[in-house]
Amino acid sequence: MLNRVRSAVAHLVSSGGTSSQRSKSPDLPNATSAPPAAQETPKSPRGKPRIEVGGPQKTAEPPVSFSRPTFLQLSPGGLRRADDHIGRAVQSPPDTGRRLPWSTGYAEVINAGKSRHNEDQACCEVVYVESRKSITGVPREPGHNQGFCFYYWGLFDGHAGGGAAEMASRLLHRHIREQLKDLVDILQDPLPPPLCLPCSPRTPGVSKPSQLVSPQSGWSPQKEVTHDSLVVGAIESAFQLMDEQMARERRGHHVEGGCCALVVVYLLGKMYVANAGDSRAIIVRNGEIIPMSREFTPETERQRLQLLGFLKPELLGGEFTHLEFPRRVQPKELGQRMLYRDQNMTGWAYKKIELEDLRLPLVCGEGKKARVMATIGVTRGLGDHNLKVCSSTLPIKPFLSCFPEVRVYDLTQYEHCPDDVLVLGTDGLWDVTNDSEVAATVDRVLSSYEPNDPSRYTALAQALVLGARGIPRDRGWRLPNNKLGSGDDISVFVIPLGGPGSSYS
Amino acid sequence: MLNRVRSAVAHLVSSGGTSSQRSKSPDLPNATSAPPAAQETPKSPRGKPRIEVGGPQKTAEPPVSFSRPTFLQLSPGGLRRADDHIGRAVQSPPDTGRRLPWSTGYAEVINAGKSRHNEDQACCEVVYVESRKSITGVPREPGHNQGFCFYYWGLFDGHAGGGAAEMASRLLHRHIREQLKDLVDILQDPLPPPLCLPCSPRTPGVSKPSQLVSPQSGWSPQKEVTHDSLVVGAIESAFQLMDEQMARERRGHHVEGGCCALVVVYLLGKMYVANAGDSRAIIVRNGEIIPMSREFTPETERQRLQLLGFLKPELLGGEFTHLEFPRRVQPKELGQRMLYRDQNMTGWAYKKIELEDLRLPLVCGEGKKARVMATIGVTRGLGDHNLKVCSSTLPIKPFLSCFPEVRVYDLTQYEHCPDDVLVLGTDGLWDVTNDSEVAATVDRVLSSYEPNDPSRYTALAQALVLGARGIPRDRGWRLPNNKLGSGDDISVFVIPLGGPGSSYS
Repeated sequence: MLNRVRSAVAHLVSSGGTSSQRSKSPDLPNATSAPPAAQETPKSPRGKPRIEVGGPQKTAEPPVSFSRPTFLQLSPGGLRRADDHIGRAVQSPPDTGRRLPWSTGYAEVINAGKSRHNEDQACCEVVYVESRKSITGVPREPGHNQGFCFYYWGLFDGHAGGGAAEMASRLLHRHIREQLKDLVDILQDPLPPPLCLPCSPRTPGVSKPSQLVSPQSGWSPQKEVTHDSLVVGAIESAFQLMDEQMARERRGHHVEGGCCALVVVYLLGKMYVANAGDSRAIIVRNGEIIPMSREFTPETERQRLQLLGFLKPELLGGEFTHLEFPRRVQPKELGQRMLYRDQNMTGWAYKKIELEDLRLPLVCGEGKKARVMATIGVTRGLGDHNLKVCSSTLPIKPFLSCFPEVRVYDLTQYEHCPDDVLVLGTDGLWDVTNDSEVAATVDRVLSSYEPNDPSRYTALAQALVLGARGIPRDRGWRLPNNKLGSGDDISVFVIPLGGPGSSYS
Repeated sequence: MLNRVRSAVAHLVSSGGTSSQRSKSPDLPNATSAPPAAQETPKSPRGKPRIEVGGPQKTAEPPVSFSRPTFLQLSPGGLRRADDHIGRAVQSPPDTGRRLPWSTGYAEVINAGKSRHNEDQACCEVVYVESRKSITGVPREPGHNQGFCFYYWGLFDGHAGGGAAEMASRLLHRHIREQLKDLVDILQDPLPPPLCLPCSPRTPGVSKPSQLVSPQSGWSPQKEVTHDSLVVGAIESAFQLMDEQMARERRGHHVEGGCCALVVVYLLGKMYVANAGDSRAIIVRNGEIIPMSREFTPETERQRLQLLGFLKPELLGGEFTHLEFPRRVQPKELGQRMLYRDQNMTGWAYKKIELEDLRLPLVCGEGKKARVMATIGVTRGLGDHNLKVCSSTLPIKPFLSCFPEVRVYDLTQYEHCPDDVLVLGTDGLWDVTNDSEVAATVDRVLSSYEPNDPSRYTALAQALVLGARGIPRDRGWRLPNNKLGSGDDISVFVIPLGGPGSSYS
């Protein structure tokens, strides 16, 4: 995200951040993928190791390694081109070899110079989940449910360094897998989920959820809990555990900065779209736009932030006020009446200016310039555990939430055609493009390819990235309408909704 | 609201609550309407005094006075019929004499016995707002803006006594008028509102907002503040001041209980629909349904309530847990794993049951049985300052919000026909009727009257109330489909959207 963290970038660069992470998480036993090693040559598109090279050394600072998604299969030379702020070449997986699952399209481009490297990261995986019980070695009953696969796509938009985005792109789906292990049998059982499990997750014994405490039994009224809501809960818990892991390991592994996370899990017929940050997902279906996420910014989360500042004034450190004013209050205005909003209000009213109102507002600015504590422009995501108010020791993390909003889309409720897609983009795309323009590009590009041409989704992703980047003209990158193109990192997934059972898989 | 406050009713009845209020508010100078006096004869439909008589004395308790909206023009005999739980006669303003503004339709019916009196109240007024500055006696400039009128409709659904609803129906529009006095000139000036006013509201001097600190000046970026958002802020502030007045005066004037408030302000071409509670407003326009409110209940506000309990655990008094479980945890389940949700989650996950989880959940139950602290089923409204958890001294008020959500509807953006209406109803209506059924009734009833017959909106309100009440049959009030009708108080306004400039006014 361009300028998402004002001041913090310089602050953190000077403290030596932005290196990528390689540790294997101690929280994630039985990891199927080995941690990447520097300078390793590319493997298969969906293998785990990432190519990493020293970044261009423009200053006397020590070299900083960086990486791009493995599925791009970049050679060291390709990686250097992907890291070139001048050319800003659009990167996609090669048209040869194995495709991404579902023939997913992907394209990315680096920023125009706002940070040394591309701080976006991406991940696309097929993940097998084995029931935790079978791991214990207990013999299966006949007909006992097997594990299942989920399909996974993730976009991670880093700020104040690429470390958090890199770590999340490598580990978040493994946290999700861990959370789903307990649910393998439950999700495949048509009966309602058991409300209570008799013992710890690793203890063998009960093999069928329907034999556990039945949701129909019990002495008090009880709520209906759907299978979907268990998957949502698993994804929410995984985000939290990922954030906690970053907190634990940030010192040892230099995970500076933070990242927005937008991930999609396809499981048992449904897409779960989880968003924490200001990336965006939309479905374009038969020309219709279905929003699958909303953005979390100081403006959209103003009332949550103000409530927290009001209830926990110690978090404001005597430097900030939880009240919002339409502009900064000046000392000479003491005693006058200015418009304000508190945590309960959506409208504005006048209040007499008092001494406390001269403090900096907790939330200020509008649109892309909105900030929490004059520092960060996004209010949900992973990481940022070290983020402080500029020239202060006041931590900002208490105001940030690592929890995503998860929306569920049932793929079986509609017969999708090859032109129906789910588009994921970091804010580099959406800063200069709106939903309707994206839908128009979907129509224009896909209609120019045969419906069964699997390269059409990559072409669409490239068209979306190019359309947001623009072309270099006098004074910067320009769109056809001569407006400024996006100078931010731009990353786009295009997921055809034909699904794993379609001809694309 | 039927059963909205479990236990609390008995608790408060035994402490002598439920009487109506008659004091003139010290906060509302220059009130245009005198406080009502008991046993006064009816005045004009829009006059202020209310008829009040002693209620039927079914027990040895002291007589409790009650009142119905003045515009019903009820005689003492009519008032007794309106108070009859057996007959449940539908009440409307008489078809003779002066109509309600805009030919508004209104109907109500008392509950089937859940409380001694009808705890709903209603208000419909035309309120003139004079600029505060002119009150100071400063001579007006030529062309200086005059005051303005707003039209006002309010439904107040009381619980645990009728006092709060009665007080709100008598005073809330006066609080709104007070808040609007500062805005008389500003709202009629096409320039953007001034962000800062130089002095106190009662100090004369500056006469045109455009001469004040201009929104285009200033040294820092500033937000756009619309005229609409000032009206929204005025309504929000008025709700807060009304609630504070109830808190101050509750002892002296026996304002026990609380109430939901749904009010509509029509001002300068726009309808402002403000809702705090579980009443509902919808517009039916050319057959289309436009929701104009949402309900605030323990279910819809679960995460706000849990966050508050998490951040301020002292409010839970060691008796409650902020976590939600699908049913009450049993002591024998200690150490087992149960589904739960915290303040960050919308999905469910399993957690190991610990001792603290055996406490009562802050939020429990589903649908109409959902409760905060096992007591109250609505989370926004006015009053409830004395409400305690049953058999405890733990106050519930900190979890309740007096702030409404305000939605704005611009009447000038659409040419309305005589069949386009705004329907307001207390939950007695919506518990047994949905939006589509209401829209069908709107169509059926209005099409059976001439478009220019002003009695059609009252007929529609009566049809809606009758349709929700049902008819007395074996074992209670029954709807045509033999389902139970609403046993709650039911109150309905039908506001034609022709507006004050139409032939209806």
